[in-house]
Amino acid sequence: MGVLIKNGTIVTALDRYVGDVYVREGKIVALSRGLAPSSGDTTIDASGQYVFPGGIDPHVHMELPQMGTVSADDFETGTAAGVAGGTTTIIDFVIPERNQDYLEALAAWHRRAAKAVSDYAFHMAITWWREDTTKVVRHCVHHEGIPSFKTYMAYKDTIGIDDTALIQLMRAANSVGALVTVHAEHGDMVGDLRNTLVAEGKTAIKYHAHSRPPAVEGEATARAIMLARLTGEPLYVVHVSCIEALEAVAAARARGQQVYGETCPQYLLLDDSVYDTRGFEGAAYVMSPPLRPPGHQEALWAALKAGILQTVATDHCPFNQVGQKDRGKDDFRLIPNGAAGIEHRLPLMYSYGVLQGHIDLNQLVDLTSTRAAKIFGLYPRKGSITVGADADLVVFDPEATATISAQTHHHRVDRSIFEGYQLKGLPSHVVVNGRVQYANGKLDTQRGAGRYLERSLPGQRRTHRGCW
Amino acid sequence: MGVLIKNGTIVTALDRYVGDVYVREGKIVALSRGLAPSSGDTTIDASGQYVFPGGIDPHVHMELPQMGTVSADDFETGTAAGVAGGTTTIIDFVIPERNQDYLEALAAWHRRAAKAVSDYAFHMAITWWREDTTKVVRHCVHHEGIPSFKTYMAYKDTIGIDDTALIQLMRAANSVGALVTVHAEHGDMVGDLRNTLVAEGKTAIKYHAHSRPPAVEGEATARAIMLARLTGEPLYVVHVSCIEALEAVAAARARGQQVYGETCPQYLLLDDSVYDTRGFEGAAYVMSPPLRPPGHQEALWAALKAGILQTVATDHCPFNQVGQKDRGKDDFRLIPNGAAGIEHRLPLMYSYGVLQGHIDLNQLVDLTSTRAAKIFGLYPRKGSITVGADADLVVFDPEATATISAQTHHHRVDRSIFEGYQLKGLPSHVVVNGRVQYANGKLDTQRGAGRYLERSLPGQRRTHRGCW
Amino acid sequence: MGVLIKNGTIVTALDRYVGDVYVREGKIVALSRGLAPSSGDTTIDASGQYVFPGGIDPHVHMELPQMGTVSADDFETGTAAGVAGGTTTIIDFVIPERNQDYLEALAAWHRRAAKAVSDYAFHMAITWWREDTTKVVRHCVHHEGIPSFKTYMAYKDTIGIDDTALIQLMRAANSVGALVTVHAEHGDMVGDLRNTLVAEGKTAIKYHAHSRPPAVEGEATARAIMLARLTGEPLYVVHVSCIEALEAVAAARARGQQVYGETCPQYLLLDDSVYDTRGFEGAAYVMSPPLRPPGHQEALWAALKAGILQTVATDHCPFNQVGQKDRGKDDFRLIPNGAAGIEHRLPLMYSYGVLQGHIDLNQLVDLTSTRAAKIFGLYPRKGSITVGADADLVVFDPEATATISAQTHHHRVDRSIFEGYQLKGLPSHVVVNGRVQYANGKLDTQRGAGRYLERSLPGQRRTHRGCW
Amino acid sequence: MGVLIKNGTIVTALDRYVGDVYVREGKIVALSRGLAPSSGDTTIDASGQYVFPGGIDPHVHMELPQMGTVSADDFETGTAAGVAGGTTTIIDFVIPERNQDYLEALAAWHRRAAKAVSDYAFHMAITWWREDTTKVVRHCVHHEGIPSFKTYMAYKDTIGIDDTALIQLMRAANSVGALVTVHAEHGDMVGDLRNTLVAEGKTAIKYHAHSRPPAVEGEATARAIMLARLTGEPLYVVHVSCIEALEAVAAARARGQQVYGETCPQYLLLDDSVYDTRGFEGAAYVMSPPLRPPGHQEALWAALKAGILQTVATDHCPFNQVGQKDRGKDDFRLIPNGAAGIEHRLPLMYSYGVLQGHIDLNQLVDLTSTRAAKIFGLYPRKGSITVGADADLVVFDPEATATISAQTHHHRVDRSIFEGYQLKGLPSHVVVNGRVQYANGKLDTQRGAGRYLERSLPGQRRTHRGCW
Repeated sequence: MGVLIKNGTIVTALDRYVGDVYVREGKIVALSRGLAPSSGDTTIDASGQYVFPGGIDPHVHMELPQMGTVSADDFETGTAAGVAGGTTTIIDFVIPERNQDYLEALAAWHRRAAKAVSDYAFHMAITWWREDTTKVVRHCVHHEGIPSFKTYMAYKDTIGIDDTALIQLMRAANSVGALVTVHAEHGDMVGDLRNTLVAEGKTAIKYHAHSRPPAVEGEATARAIMLARLTGEPLYVVHVSCIEALEAVAAARARGQQVYGETCPQYLLLDDSVYDTRGFEGAAYVMSPPLRPPGHQEALWAALKAGILQTVATDHCPFNQVGQKDRGKDDFRLIPNGAAGIEHRLPLMYSYGVLQGHIDLNQLVDLTSTRAAKIFGLYPRKGSITVGADADLVVFDPEATATISAQTHHHRVDRSIFEGYQLKGLPSHVVVNGRVQYANGKLDTQRGAGRYLERSLPGQRRTHRGCW
Repeated sequence: MGVLIKNGTIVTALDRYVGDVYVREGKIVALSRGLAPSSGDTTIDASGQYVFPGGIDPHVHMELPQMGTVSADDFETGTAAGVAGGTTTIIDFVIPERNQDYLEALAAWHRRAAKAVSDYAFHMAITWWREDTTKVVRHCVHHEGIPSFKTYMAYKDTIGIDDTALIQLMRAANSVGALVTVHAEHGDMVGDLRNTLVAEGKTAIKYHAHSRPPAVEGEATARAIMLARLTGEPLYVVHVSCIEALEAVAAARARGQQVYGETCPQYLLLDDSVYDTRGFEGAAYVMSPPLRPPGHQEALWAALKAGILQTVATDHCPFNQVGQKDRGKDDFRLIPNGAAGIEHRLPLMYSYGVLQGHIDLNQLVDLTSTRAAKIFGLYPRKGSITVGADADLVVFDPEATATISAQTHHHRVDRSIFEGYQLKGLPSHVVVNGRVQYANGKLDTQRGAGRYLERSLPGQRRTHRGCW
Repeated sequence: MGVLIKNGTIVTALDRYVGDVYVREGKIVALSRGLAPSSGDTTIDASGQYVFPGGIDPHVHMELPQMGTVSADDFETGTAAGVAGGTTTIIDFVIPERNQDYLEALAAWHRRAAKAVSDYAFHMAITWWREDTTKVVRHCVHHEGIPSFKTYMAYKDTIGIDDTALIQLMRAANSVGALVTVHAEHGDMVGDLRNTLVAEGKTAIKYHAHSRPPAVEGEATARAIMLARLTGEPLYVVHVSCIEALEAVAAARARGQQVYGETCPQYLLLDDSVYDTRGFEGAAYVMSPPLRPPGHQEALWAALKAGILQTVATDHCPFNQVGQKDRGKDDFRLIPNGAAGIEHRLPLMYSYGVLQGHIDLNQLVDLTSTRAAKIFGLYPRKGSITVGADADLVVFDPEATATISAQTHHHRVDRSIFEGYQLKGLPSHVVVNGRVQYANGKLDTQRGAGRYLERSLPGQRRTHRGCW
Repeated sequence: MGVLIKNGTIVTALDRYVGDVYVREGKIVALSRGLAPSSGDTTIDASGQYVFPGGIDPHVHMELPQMGTVSADDFETGTAAGVAGGTTTIIDFVIPERNQDYLEALAAWHRRAAKAVSDYAFHMAITWWREDTTKVVRHCVHHEGIPSFKTYMAYKDTIGIDDTALIQLMRAANSVGALVTVHAEHGDMVGDLRNTLVAEGKTAIKYHAHSRPPAVEGEATARAIMLARLTGEPLYVVHVSCIEALEAVAAARARGQQVYGETCPQYLLLDDSVYDTRGFEGAAYVMSPPLRPPGHQEALWAALKAGILQTVATDHCPFNQVGQKDRGKDDFRLIPNGAAGIEHRLPLMYSYGVLQGHIDLNQLVDLTSTRAAKIFGLYPRKGSITVGADADLVVFDPEATATISAQTHHHRVDRSIFEGYQLKGLPSHVVVNGRVQYANGKLDTQRGAGRYLERSLPGQRRTHRGCW
């Protein structure tokens, strides 16, 4: 009934040592050496392999309605792809339409997510604000297990909010110890650039990037940080993609402000040359923020190493080239934004982060699992190899190799932005809540096995408003 | 009929040499040595004195309606105080009410300004935006001699505009070579802080400063600079008061962006201690941005010396303690914002800038006269001692002394924020358009002698949008 | 024979959970819950208390000869004071005189250190350089267990080296995977300022600080970082005390350079006002770098929180007011430099760091123990609560209180720079290599029980020279 | 006898207006309109042309002994090439050998310079320091007309000095109001990199640049600035070539420190690609600092525009490819450093600076003439178009075109680093001390017509030591 992982090199965000992990009833119950399996136990020989806590992806969008279509992975296929790649927990976003009842939207997301194969949680996106929205914030924190709120500084016409609303959300979140997260781009400037470009006949894919230059992300990041500083609220900046935004985050942290930054593998490994040279293939890379010119990637790696950024998520949100991305063939503004990533986050970060010396093994675990658990209120249940924690475990074979391809990936999409990337180091086994869901290249998931995770941020420290 | 200024040390923004200046029919007609007066000429012996071009104050508000009252100096008394202090040209602001017709407002300002004793020009404040406001911009540039437009990033409820409008203005201004100027404070954050403070019972004068901390000015400055960068528009930031804003201006300039910064004597010479220690006297110092904590002043001086800031204006906008400032006795939000400054700008900058080694004599002239003329399209008619320029000249006695006091100043207001300040160096004679309007302590102005100055910015260089 | 610590809240640099720690033969042998003691075991009830790994102080000077006298704590009294305060490992410095044989000096330090009550290691100071000093470096790394080398950019007349030597050391260290540490002050500038001040009759204590302003530390820090960058060598900067140095460290780390920074409680908690206001008491605070003006302390706290600095050491090096510090009564240059700190590092960092919200509990452990173990090659033997680690453990009572006083401290010196500081949170028990050496206020140490720790840095990653 | 320049557009560092300039006995005697020539006067019709003050190049090395050879232009050919390009004054460097008597070296330079065709001055290089060198400094200032001193932070084996000497020079210079200038590269690091590269067999030309990366210039610049700050001495940094150095200069100026920066056309217009792609042609570009990677050039232009840098010099110091540069065919360390530039400075800065919008016309004059005069004590005699100034004048035809080529240039060297560069805008006439030395493409110089210029810095303001 149990699972015994023997002789692995256990790697946490802090430690690295050889030992056995014994799992029963979905929980880690023993850490030691020389343990013998009980009858009925599954034994995994992890000699020469690493044992990581299961990955946590705090930024994904499964079956998200966007621009008249829906992102291609649903909660089952998306979480299964995650499991295949060593990610066993996701935090998705409830994104109400403007003026839609927040709890109604939450219910819709709960219905969609019920088919997930591994555990999941939600951020609530605040897409509109009325005086009584403060009550929604409180309700989510106190009754729904949702202590983190997403905001969009872009997309003012649909899901974005203005600074007045953002300030009020920060005040409301602060009063109940919740965390505000922000998509930081100056939406008005982007809108102007988009229209200006199109008016000049510049409708090709590459103009997507021209319409969202690093300056608009850097500015919005700095602005959100200022608002957070003066309201005393911590801040989590999603998908930091450029030097300008990094500098704003680094300056805030150096000042003592409680600001967190997230990036994604695509911003670390790809640059904007893809928009110009690949014809319509370039549409696969259309996302916001866009991929950046060469130079930004190196700065992001350094920021991970230095602790300026805290997490690596994926913003997983795939759309097919055929039938979805091709809506914008003649106008970059009509290309659905997003790409697949959840399956390859951990192997990419190992192959291109650890093996190339950008980060060490402990940082790998921290960035892809533990820190997200701590920031978003899942710790120590998730992201931890300690007695009592959920038995989400990855046995990781550092010698295994593979090549990424849309032909073979588990993402339900016709294109991979990492097509052809060589991987060295892959999960050999993935245990989800005490059950082996992936072994030696085969998925064995159960639709609906995933559970909704109520989160809380009890120890959330507040900074002082007075830090002017 | 002419005026001959003999043997003065002529000081421009570049040069310093001894010579004679001969003036006839309102113009400088000769620069030389050993000139003899013609019959009927007035001769001024300037031996041992400096001869400066007349000062230009590009930021004043005469008889400005604000918060239900009107600023205490009208165009006659305000320009006369200017003349007494060596400032012979002002640029005031036409500030329409929300939705008021721009040209109707302009006409109102023309009526008020007709009584000015020295020449004047206008900036147009863009206080609301509709699609056809672009036409207003063009009309002002092409037909009204107004190529500079003021915007407020604060005061959204009255005269402030949002970023969408600001971007559109920048586009419109750029298309006709006009210049956008900006009052940079994040108004929404200020509004939130004001209300939060008052809700906590914090209504005393000092909370005015708490509600507008340096961070809100620094952020808005950086934001306006980003918008200007991406629209390719030059930018002039009025009344820079703090290190955070300086850093944004310096970074933009170091990048090659065409950004100008202005400060005022009060931000150089006073700090925020006045709000806390002087009882209701502190109301005299209520302005926006507020006076800053110690430390910022030194940084502003250094910025003047280093060329990070280009102009020193006054934001002259006085209100009486009795009957005006006292409306906010019980709530800092009700105190009219502003103070008097035009008369003492030049002497203060000489006494506390030049004599204390912060700036040199050429910089004094540049900061208080020539650079404003160049930036705002008055050069070489104003701000210049060359043949053909308007005969606005200040004979400045470096040995004269005085003590600033509301008892003796020419400002029509019951309080001076520089009360008791010692001055060394004062105008002995001020020539306005070829006529001596001030001599040895006596004003001899003529109501209505001032003329409206149509301005143009023909050589205005545009930066490229591509400077991402 | 064993020690069982029951029901404590075990706190590591990562985790926090309730459990039992079982110790036998000097090692941690079990981590679990509900353990029962064997016969002969000592049981410590840690309910309601924290269990930390023993502190590591990587910067102390026991019985150091300096300026004709010797620092007041010897290895016995100094390590005992450490034990009383929860620090169970020190790294002291072998500091040869100019031209003294390095191994002869090492032997002398081994003789002095033999009386230590807890474990110790050495850094080797490189105080002079000849071509064959490279061999010394290799010998220390390969045969003496010393993979870290200290250099002084000040003190050129005695123990300091110039940049030529520093570069050669970096090259030599790099070739064997060793780490260079640096005392960063521009010694020539300091020397000039000292002489200039004394020539002006400025001999009082406060001029010690004037002679070593933040600019000389900031400059030298940036310079050492540049040399490390171009030689591809990691760098550890000791006792960072000021904003200027912090900025250099932060910039290097943001660029991806492997630079570590250390600070000390005195730089976090005290400012330079002590030099001016306390008469000869001020001599107690004479150290290099000196205490800094208000403002720097807050920046150092923020740097700890943000991860810009990695360790908190003490630079423990006490001298008595009477008979030692008073040598410099009439000339600040003659005051021996240094103060006591080892006993109070952990309690001060808890009381003023954790309780005041600057850092969290995990950071406390990281900064005072685990990170030093990792950087200097003592991990996982020291600084870790995992099975197999040395049984150096602190049971820490968060409710205990005390007031620091030279009357009661275990430091062998007549003055405490933290005299009168209130502490909340103190060790109740300290286990050293499996033996309880401190319990409920009583020391029970054994002279000579400490062992010399050979260190190695096998995994030391090298940065690339090419990072220009 | 006189020269009358009629109807030109007179352009100074401040003004731009149409007028006549009348010159007699080597001086400007009248500025006006409508002047008629006297009999015997030469008249130049400057309609449609600019009239600039003659250029001043504050950084040249004529017939400089270096590495066993001598730079290819002597004082006659070098100043003549300058005249052909609109530069009518040079400041060369007296560079004594280590331990050579300073005045003996000065006498040698006076002998060499006597053949100059236009006026010249000297900086004194301080290449060694003994206690009594302070007297040399004073003597140069008080009796030789040399108030500026050059130092080399590189080249420690020959002409470089260490920081101890630099500090003492700053103190000495400060006591007599003199200015220290610095070649800022960390010589020890450069030396180590050179040797390391050669030891690795990397002897090709491109490794010259690898051995002097931007980091060594940035570091040394920051260090010199710190020393200047703490000794209260102004500082002039020669040939700033990279972003790192710019940032140090900008930070110092923003703090109010009196720091000046100079760059050269080669750092603005060329990048390091020339070292790698042109075979031995690349040797022509070997200079120190070397040309920089793409990106630095744009930053330098922005720094000129923003006023972060003050002057554009040439570091004119040519060596022939054949017989000089080729000494280093097999080892980059043996290539004489330097290139020609004096003839093309003004036209290049007009064609590539003004016409491409990096700087305006007034800045052109300021950067190439007036500011150097002010900084180095030649103003108002040189660099000025005012009555009484020396009649060094350039009539500049903005429509003239040419292509730079070693075939046609007046530099006495076989290679131009700007070979093939197109010029638009060239001097049509150059007046030197009232005599036309260049007209319509023809030089008419007189060997020995140049005079030695004694300089003084009477008004040199000192910054305060206390600016910590």
